[in-house]
Amino acid sequence: MSYVAPVKDMLFCMKELAGLEEVAKLPGFEEAGLETAQAVLEESAKFNQDVLAPLNFEGDKNPSYWKDGKVFTTPGFKDAFRQLGEGGWQGLQHPTDFGGQGLPKTIGAACIEMLNSANMSFALCPLLTDGAIEALLTAGSPELQQTYLPNMISGKWTGTMNLTEPQAGSDLALVRTRAEPQPDGTYKIFGTKIFITYGEHDMAENIVHLVLARVTGAPEGVKGISLFVVPKFMVNADGSLGARNDAHCVSIEHKMGIKASPTAVLQFGDHGGAVGYLVGQENRGLEYMFIMMNAARYAVGIQGIAVAERSYQKAVQYAKDRVQSRPVDGSINKSAPIIHHPDVKRMLMTMRSLIEGCRAMAITAAAAYDAAHAHPDAEVRKQNQAFYEFMVPLVKGYSTEMSLEVTSLGVQVHGGMGFIEETGAAQYYRDAKILTIYEGTTAIQANDLVGRKTARDGGQTAKAIAQQIAKTEAELAKRDSVAARAVQKRLSAARVAFEQVVDFVAGGTKGNPNAVFAGSVPYLMLAGNVMAGWQLGRALLVAESQLKAGEGDAAFLRAKVTTAQFYAEHILSRVPGQRDAIVDGAESVTALALESF
Amino acid sequence: MSYVAPVKDMLFCMKELAGLEEVAKLPGFEEAGLETAQAVLEESAKFNQDVLAPLNFEGDKNPSYWKDGKVFTTPGFKDAFRQLGEGGWQGLQHPTDFGGQGLPKTIGAACIEMLNSANMSFALCPLLTDGAIEALLTAGSPELQQTYLPNMISGKWTGTMNLTEPQAGSDLALVRTRAEPQPDGTYKIFGTKIFITYGEHDMAENIVHLVLARVTGAPEGVKGISLFVVPKFMVNADGSLGARNDAHCVSIEHKMGIKASPTAVLQFGDHGGAVGYLVGQENRGLEYMFIMMNAARYAVGIQGIAVAERSYQKAVQYAKDRVQSRPVDGSINKSAPIIHHPDVKRMLMTMRSLIEGCRAMAITAAAAYDAAHAHPDAEVRKQNQAFYEFMVPLVKGYSTEMSLEVTSLGVQVHGGMGFIEETGAAQYYRDAKILTIYEGTTAIQANDLVGRKTARDGGQTAKAIAQQIAKTEAELAKRDSVAARAVQKRLSAARVAFEQVVDFVAGGTKGNPNAVFAGSVPYLMLAGNVMAGWQLGRALLVAESQLKAGEGDAAFLRAKVTTAQFYAEHILSRVPGQRDAIVDGAESVTALALESF
Repeated sequence: MSYVAPVKDMLFCMKELAGLEEVAKLPGFEEAGLETAQAVLEESAKFNQDVLAPLNFEGDKNPSYWKDGKVFTTPGFKDAFRQLGEGGWQGLQHPTDFGGQGLPKTIGAACIEMLNSANMSFALCPLLTDGAIEALLTAGSPELQQTYLPNMISGKWTGTMNLTEPQAGSDLALVRTRAEPQPDGTYKIFGTKIFITYGEHDMAENIVHLVLARVTGAPEGVKGISLFVVPKFMVNADGSLGARNDAHCVSIEHKMGIKASPTAVLQFGDHGGAVGYLVGQENRGLEYMFIMMNAARYAVGIQGIAVAERSYQKAVQYAKDRVQSRPVDGSINKSAPIIHHPDVKRMLMTMRSLIEGCRAMAITAAAAYDAAHAHPDAEVRKQNQAFYEFMVPLVKGYSTEMSLEVTSLGVQVHGGMGFIEETGAAQYYRDAKILTIYEGTTAIQANDLVGRKTARDGGQTAKAIAQQIAKTEAELAKRDSVAARAVQKRLSAARVAFEQVVDFVAGGTKGNPNAVFAGSVPYLMLAGNVMAGWQLGRALLVAESQLKAGEGDAAFLRAKVTTAQFYAEHILSRVPGQRDAIVDGAESVTALALESF
Repeated sequence: MSYVAPVKDMLFCMKELAGLEEVAKLPGFEEAGLETAQAVLEESAKFNQDVLAPLNFEGDKNPSYWKDGKVFTTPGFKDAFRQLGEGGWQGLQHPTDFGGQGLPKTIGAACIEMLNSANMSFALCPLLTDGAIEALLTAGSPELQQTYLPNMISGKWTGTMNLTEPQAGSDLALVRTRAEPQPDGTYKIFGTKIFITYGEHDMAENIVHLVLARVTGAPEGVKGISLFVVPKFMVNADGSLGARNDAHCVSIEHKMGIKASPTAVLQFGDHGGAVGYLVGQENRGLEYMFIMMNAARYAVGIQGIAVAERSYQKAVQYAKDRVQSRPVDGSINKSAPIIHHPDVKRMLMTMRSLIEGCRAMAITAAAAYDAAHAHPDAEVRKQNQAFYEFMVPLVKGYSTEMSLEVTSLGVQVHGGMGFIEETGAAQYYRDAKILTIYEGTTAIQANDLVGRKTARDGGQTAKAIAQQIAKTEAELAKRDSVAARAVQKRLSAARVAFEQVVDFVAGGTKGNPNAVFAGSVPYLMLAGNVMAGWQLGRALLVAESQLKAGEGDAAFLRAKVTTAQFYAEHILSRVPGQRDAIVDGAESVTALALESF
């Protein structure tokens, strides 16, 4: 089997770190307890391991291709997509009103991870559809919802996000696609959109494009952008498909990775205008798009964890199989599997601890999302919302940056074989590189972290989290194990560094924005590092307690303790240096004359 | 122009850091002063910029391919190879006795960098030939030398290194290829070699394979390995080419990068035995192979610098062209080229400072090589040899690991366009990943650093270098500039950390080898970081002095000061954390039970 879903670790994160039992007390999630979680995860594991995982390498070898305006996906994808819908996986987290399963994000996040470990190129299609569903649920009229949501949630139709244009990437103020109001209340859409994931394909009957455009006469900049539904095929009153809309795929990109996922250039309105339906109100498009983007950003963070996990599993397998050289400690007196070599262990532990740290961070953030949406107490909702929003750029930015490190090590463990495409390790390395770019580059996530998530409330949310970390440190300090002491030491130093950087960021955004933004990505990396390390510190506390009480799977728990210790000593130990670079090093970032580059 | 050779920085490194004027005092190098260096570099720049650089992307699109035992290289490669030979570039550093130019490595290293920036896939062919020439020069009989060297040095024939077999990668003890002695003094070679760079191609009339094999009855392990010359075509007594030898390419690999460079599987002896000529003495093959490998390892380090430089130049160009979003400091009141954004500057400065640091390290190491070979005083030779040998794993390991970071940032600066193959940034990212693997993975370099270069002399060489660094710190402390103070602070902390790690490594290899080797790669990264930072500290001293004296190119010198400061604040600042991980974190590297992975 090329992928085995880490169900045990996912359940541990849900139960012991994210408080799944608390989530299951929230109105609407009463049935989402541990038993449900376990059943769903096991079913999800089966589907992803058996159906999607074997198609991953195939998708890289036989990518989607474009011919005469149509896009043909990798053989097997269409059938897999049918099974995804039939299994109810597209509707997992969506409302039961429209046919979804209504499960909390705490559980959904783990299923999304599996989907992306199994086949990231494939998983992008349901990922984008999820975002489109979110936007319609929040801002779509009842009519739009009724027309589109049931078929999207059932996995019959797919959704897309149409933001980017050649001149408008991170800078949406530059969007030029225009929407002309029609007498019947619809709009005609004209323009070119690029980088549209699954903008055209053959897996679904219809594609629901969500498109940013400017209504005639709208203000300049981001305040004049509206959001439209532009279906590939018009939908008749009875729900059947009607005429082809004037939205056409003119080409797809030739990419370094995620090759099976078609990245389309879409032309809207070349033949008279594409019919579009306004979502919500005019000129509020960016706000709605952010709903999709925030869902998508979190999901891309999960993709980072997912591709890293797959890369790790492959590397472990190779390290156990490949025989080369004697262990340096003389424990084996002949050439041995390379996993016996300390540096191979170091690489695998680095991969493993980064993955487990990011997974713990992501699943605890998901629980906050659930509480922010479903908790009956407004104050609790607000606190959880603040926590979740703080975590989104970290889940997206840190987990994806770490996936570059992990998939690079994944190649490295394989030695020369890692560089040969048939081995498969290289695919993860190539695939992962998109993750730090799309749905907002790491720098865009860092701007969000600095501006909206830290400076805006004067660092209050960040400091509140630091307080919670200090409590974990206090718990760790009560333990007498070497591991707990090591984690306490590094976590404490890292948390202090985090607070110092928060002060620097919160204090400096107005006075010296260049200095603060020079350290924005390092701040994101530092904060993500601290948050992941914190969750592993919490995990260690639980694991030690259970081991002492003779509960649970001892081997799993001992591994958790070691992994937490490794993370603290080898990853958290990077934090003080990051602090130094941010706080002391701002000047040299921007000092070089432009012409000297 | 897609590549402009950084001649100014190369000459600065040679003159101000590596002491080119001293090199030019060595016997044999009397004409290799600054004037020669400048002339050679300018000529080299022309050839590489005009002829090789345009073929780089072409090679990625139209890689070498195999058909019926023959390998056809990218269109244009054959002619470029002819020009390489005619220009004398293959013979640059080789003895004039055999038709070479006899230039010092101090100058040669810069030319090798250019070659690899221009076209790494192409450059691998002369790189391997250089290694084969070195081995023949050191260990070949006069007859072998006379038969092969002139045509190799003139760039008419190429050379290969045949080490790896399917079961024998890093572990050469497992080599199985065998050599049967023949009555005429030749040997018949039988076996399979894999990963043979330019093992077959159409650019040269003949290919001189240097092959590791076991003579019948030789001892087990590495002590029974001998080295053979196995030419593709037999060479007649008059120097003309004779019969085809029984060495055939049965396939080439499908790789993630350096696609134009054919990586061959070679079958020796499938049709009765390949004729081989013993190099040197039986069973000393590994020793001779190390001559080739050490030359090749240094050159692979240069490849890291080279591909990073190319990636940097492309990223700078894009950052100056691409308009997106307003600068955070309000300095421009509309969307501006992204180089105005602090995080883009941070990425470019990271790339730039890593490149300049590694280049300075490599060129100073080259000067030590020259002194180690040509200095009349044995003691001076010995000291320089020790310094050079200490630096080789750092030049190889650190420069190539940094090339992964740099080429990843190179993609990142391009945003979504970076992931599109037509842009070209992705190629550098894919190409670079082989560099941390071939000619010994980073872990193999780190083993060398720990074992032969640090523990063997009890850390003496390392400590002697630390003493020199402390002298640079003292010089920096006399300066009153912000930049000098910043560099002094970080360099001093880093040097202290280096010494602590050296003590840890030198003290622990016997008592606790697992603990030491668990930190071997982190030690390599730390040491490389310190050495590069030290050279930039020296560069800063020179640049400030020249600026004060009103000498030199002020813009270049100011940029050097800023780059050194950036390196110290953002890269050297990683060192204390690396020390903590090595010295305190060994246990958690190897603690996990094997079955828990």
